[in-house]
Amino acid sequence: MARLDALAQHSDEPGKLTRLYLSAAHKAAAEELAGWMREAGLTVSIDALGTVLGRYESASPGAPALLIGSHIDTVRDAGRYDGALGVIAGLVAVEELAKCGENLPFAIEVVAFGDEEGVRFPTTLTSSRALAGQFDPAVLDLCDADGVSLRNALTAFGCDPAAIATIARSREQVLAYIEVHIEQGPVLEAADLPVGVVTAINGVRRLAVEVIGEAGHAGTVPMRLRRDALAAAAEMALAVERAANSSPDVLATVGRMEVSPGAVNVIPGNVRFTIDIRSPEDKQRDAATEEIVRSIRKIAAARRVELSISTMHEAPATACAPVMIDTLTQAVQHFGLAPHLLPSGAGHDAMAIARLCPVGMLFVRCAGGISHNPKEAISLQDADICVRILLEFLRNFKLK
Amino acid sequence: MARLDALAQHSDEPGKLTRLYLSAAHKAAAEELAGWMREAGLTVSIDALGTVLGRYESASPGAPALLIGSHIDTVRDAGRYDGALGVIAGLVAVEELAKCGENLPFAIEVVAFGDEEGVRFPTTLTSSRALAGQFDPAVLDLCDADGVSLRNALTAFGCDPAAIATIARSREQVLAYIEVHIEQGPVLEAADLPVGVVTAINGVRRLAVEVIGEAGHAGTVPMRLRRDALAAAAEMALAVERAANSSPDVLATVGRMEVSPGAVNVIPGNVRFTIDIRSPEDKQRDAATEEIVRSIRKIAAARRVELSISTMHEAPATACAPVMIDTLTQAVQHFGLAPHLLPSGAGHDAMAIARLCPVGMLFVRCAGGISHNPKEAISLQDADICVRILLEFLRNFKLK
Repeated sequence: MARLDALAQHSDEPGKLTRLYLSAAHKAAAEELAGWMREAGLTVSIDALGTVLGRYESASPGAPALLIGSHIDTVRDAGRYDGALGVIAGLVAVEELAKCGENLPFAIEVVAFGDEEGVRFPTTLTSSRALAGQFDPAVLDLCDADGVSLRNALTAFGCDPAAIATIARSREQVLAYIEVHIEQGPVLEAADLPVGVVTAINGVRRLAVEVIGEAGHAGTVPMRLRRDALAAAAEMALAVERAANSSPDVLATVGRMEVSPGAVNVIPGNVRFTIDIRSPEDKQRDAATEEIVRSIRKIAAARRVELSISTMHEAPATACAPVMIDTLTQAVQHFGLAPHLLPSGAGHDAMAIARLCPVGMLFVRCAGGISHNPKEAISLQDADICVRILLEFLRNFKLK
Repeated sequence: MARLDALAQHSDEPGKLTRLYLSAAHKAAAEELAGWMREAGLTVSIDALGTVLGRYESASPGAPALLIGSHIDTVRDAGRYDGALGVIAGLVAVEELAKCGENLPFAIEVVAFGDEEGVRFPTTLTSSRALAGQFDPAVLDLCDADGVSLRNALTAFGCDPAAIATIARSREQVLAYIEVHIEQGPVLEAADLPVGVVTAINGVRRLAVEVIGEAGHAGTVPMRLRRDALAAAAEMALAVERAANSSPDVLATVGRMEVSPGAVNVIPGNVRFTIDIRSPEDKQRDAATEEIVRSIRKIAAARRVELSISTMHEAPATACAPVMIDTLTQAVQHFGLAPHLLPSGAGHDAMAIARLCPVGMLFVRCAGGISHNPKEAISLQDADICVRILLEFLRNFKLK
């Protein structure tokens, strides 16, 4: 917890925690972290995209590595646990092994990625994608709000963009990836449990819907002659909610709704709204999407309004590997805790690394489910148990 | 119809019809109208608030008058029938009487009010309220967007503000008021009828509602733990519609809805919306309001969201006098037409005059229910029958 507090001092904005990719605060945090890693006896490097890596050798030197990590960039006015917890948990677990002179059948690399939040440049997961061999050189020309390209920001950080190609790991070098992360949701708190085992990172589909009815005078058009776009959209929003409620792992949200003309005495003629549909399984998400689209088409027909539906965004779900889920579950049970399996609603570096190797995630309860906010908080007890579970996992992990 | 076209030439804005209270276009329209009245043999005056009055004497001179009128001001980019039709219909009916030398047991005054739309100054019905003895001298100090006070605008128009007190009529001088007006709604068109008899001008109550739930990540908060302000507001909007559908003469509209924070991936934490509730009877409107408030409180409780409801505006209904409704109904039936009784959803000068004497209104079908728009249209046939019905009304009108 002291290290997390220390890391939170490195900020680009005074009085709050904002640590953007390749900023001065990122550089300072990376160097402090590298120092802690060296003190723990790890072999430290910072790769061509600013990722800090600390390697703890196996009993048989040069053995493939298990990666433990997360990210050390933050959103603006962030909390201190999102990302950093996963890096420090990995470091503390390895320190514990080093202290006992305990070597495992595999190497461990503690990894601190630098670009998970995607705040500074219009891209995200750049550093973890590169490690998985999925780097897209086009992103080097993307610029931040001040017009600084990613390429120039890398050079200023002390990285060599020409060396990016060397970041990619081969399947043979890497056994698996495990990421400890705060939950960023209220499920574990509601279940009164310190940790949960992630089954998958939800896939998402986002729809933009436009309902075209007929505007009219709120005082002169009888109810039966109306084609009220807002009444139709309201019925559709409830159909979205109903579709999610009827499928255990599906989440569906109408987050934006714009009503026009939007006057107190005018029947709304046009409503635009968005639907965000998520599920740990793409099949479930697709089925929920179909049900939602069927429902809202039916509502539109019954209310004689026109409808336009388009897909804004789509990303498939990332399943956690059964071996990771099982080994983590056993580690949780080892401490007498009920294993709580849950999907991740937010995206993580594990999504990118899943292209390379099996991934697993351990979620830690956070107060009120709050994240991306200075109020973000975890307890000392929960931090302690999550490291103990991580150690237990490491000691038992075997790729079948 | 030619006179309505001619009147529409008097506009404050080139290329469209905008005739604001006491403007140069209002002055020109008032003078053209006064000329037509004089040609028809009426005794013409323009009162201290710019109202044009043309008196057609009774068989017994000095007898009380029946007023026929409406307004000749318009909204910006208006149609040519809203208001003007009622004035010209009155003029044409009286011309018809004059042509035949036919005098009635009462005088007739054709009245063209100047401030019904309330566009130029932040007040409305100034001229008709004054005639009913309800003038509020405080409005003289209200200013238009250019900082011109109503007092100075009156002087510029050629009126004497000091003479406003003389505008008020006594109950003995006035028998009743009848106003012909386009419907501004789609009911008559849907019923395939040229005219309808107005039963009342709807009262209105407007509520502002705020729903306070809890914002959250669309990917991490399970459905059962959500307090989604938009899902709650959607259910409430449908309850508003349902309350109106279950009461024959009640209209209820959610016209404005603002959702925050309003991001595609964030569960809405706060929604503000408006409810406009109208009915020809205040008791019905109050009962519908109570039902709506009861329903939305229940929805808020079930969804664990907070609720704040406040009244933004309230105006009682104005009933048309039974004698006016009956005589108009008989006049409609005289021409073999089905009498269609309907409330008026919009406000009219008749609301102000009802403080003085019995009022009645005859609605004329307008294309598509459209008004306050250059597309506003009536047919020559409908204009013709409305004047014939007005004449029939005049010939049979007796205050019981």
